[in-house]
Amino acid sequence: MPPVTLTTDRILEATEDVLRRYGPAKATVVDVARALGVSHGTVYRHFASKAALREAVTQRWLDQSHSTLATVAAGPHPAPERLRQWLTELFAAKRRKAGGDPELFATYMALASEASAVVAEHVEDLVGQLSTIVGDGLARGEFSLPERTEPTERTERTEHTEHTEPTEPTDPTTIARAIWDATGRFHDPVYAAEWSQPGIDAAFDAVCGLLLNGLRPQDSPESPGTPPT
Amino acid sequence: MPPVTLTTDRILEATEDVLRRYGPAKATVVDVARALGVSHGTVYRHFASKAALREAVTQRWLDQSHSTLATVAAGPHPAPERLRQWLTELFAAKRRKAGGDPELFATYMALASEASAVVAEHVEDLVGQLSTIVGDGLARGEFSLPERTEPTERTERTEHTEHTEPTEPTDPTTIARAIWDATGRFHDPVYAAEWSQPGIDAAFDAVCGLLLNGLRPQDSPESPGTPPT
Repeated sequence: MPPVTLTTDRILEATEDVLRRYGPAKATVVDVARALGVSHGTVYRHFASKAALREAVTQRWLDQSHSTLATVAAGPHPAPERLRQWLTELFAAKRRKAGGDPELFATYMALASEASAVVAEHVEDLVGQLSTIVGDGLARGEFSLPERTEPTERTERTEHTEHTEPTEPTDPTTIARAIWDATGRFHDPVYAAEWSQPGIDAAFDAVCGLLLNGLRPQDSPESPGTPPT
Repeated sequence: MPPVTLTTDRILEATEDVLRRYGPAKATVVDVARALGVSHGTVYRHFASKAALREAVTQRWLDQSHSTLATVAAGPHPAPERLRQWLTELFAAKRRKAGGDPELFATYMALASEASAVVAEHVEDLVGQLSTIVGDGLARGEFSLPERTEPTERTERTEHTEHTEPTEPTDPTTIARAIWDATGRFHDPVYAAEWSQPGIDAAFDAVCGLLLNGLRPQDSPESPGTPPT
């Protein structure tokens, strides 16, 4: 193998190859070093431990579509359009990963289950992007949330309402998290097997439509408030 | 053991006991018969096969909260109240099952993974109940959906909108399915470990609030349409 400049990226690529070839249970730092034609000490100069190397490669994989999503989130378009586009891009990216190379996807699922802190940080980043869209939409009047309906008139609580009165979402982060939770079927890898099934796009559109509707200003010109038939 | 009238229910109870004691991998019809003090032939007169017996006990377990939920779905209260109450009851029932007897829950998760047809039918039933609530709400004007925003003005499609124009949900069953999908985090057993975590109730309320908002009539007296600040 001709000598190459040993960058972090180069090590991560080789690690992915090795993981794909040997599986996450068997792949070692020595395998990675051998694939690169260097000593394992050289790899350890870039990554302090096998765990650190695996976390870095997991992070790289998780963050693959981050820049596209971040661009959509920060984009100039109206917030409702950005929100739908962002959710659509996320779903598309997840499907590409799951469907394009199922074996690598399974490998990374195994890695991700070892690296819960990396995954949690990844999710926080994405919820942060959603929060940017929601915050922008609220600030520009493209989104609104109704005033909390006060349960004051109801002095006697009947059996069917005895649970704690819920609090409606009121800030961009809470709403962003609710959107994240409500779209789990379209981004949580536990549902990957469903992403190639017929009807999944219609299901995605239905959930998106309902969520966007939930954020739509009451006086939006797009919703003429036609009386239901 | 004193002789008892051998009802289907009695067999299913004994089967649950046996499954709990031996685990789904080891429990046999002979074990069930022995627990009941009858021959396995007697059990087979009620259930044609071991698979049929396991499916019946799975169904019974899945349907445990069906009657409560069905009562809420058909109840006299306004549809938005019924919808929130139904989702709250479902989440509560799932949590009771998962948290009350985690070992039995795990046993039934294993059984359910063998009985996908039983599970699918169970989900259809529940989505049907949701559909009843949504249909009632639309018929009474307690729920509405905006007219589909026509994308006609936009003749040149830019990069960020080049995906297929989505179709908004327009019928009770599609909406019911969207509500089911959007609340998966609060009823899909894959998330059972999260149901005892702090913040889960707030997360549930946020998703519920967003969905209910998405169904709210534009001219609802409960939503005065205050301009966003």
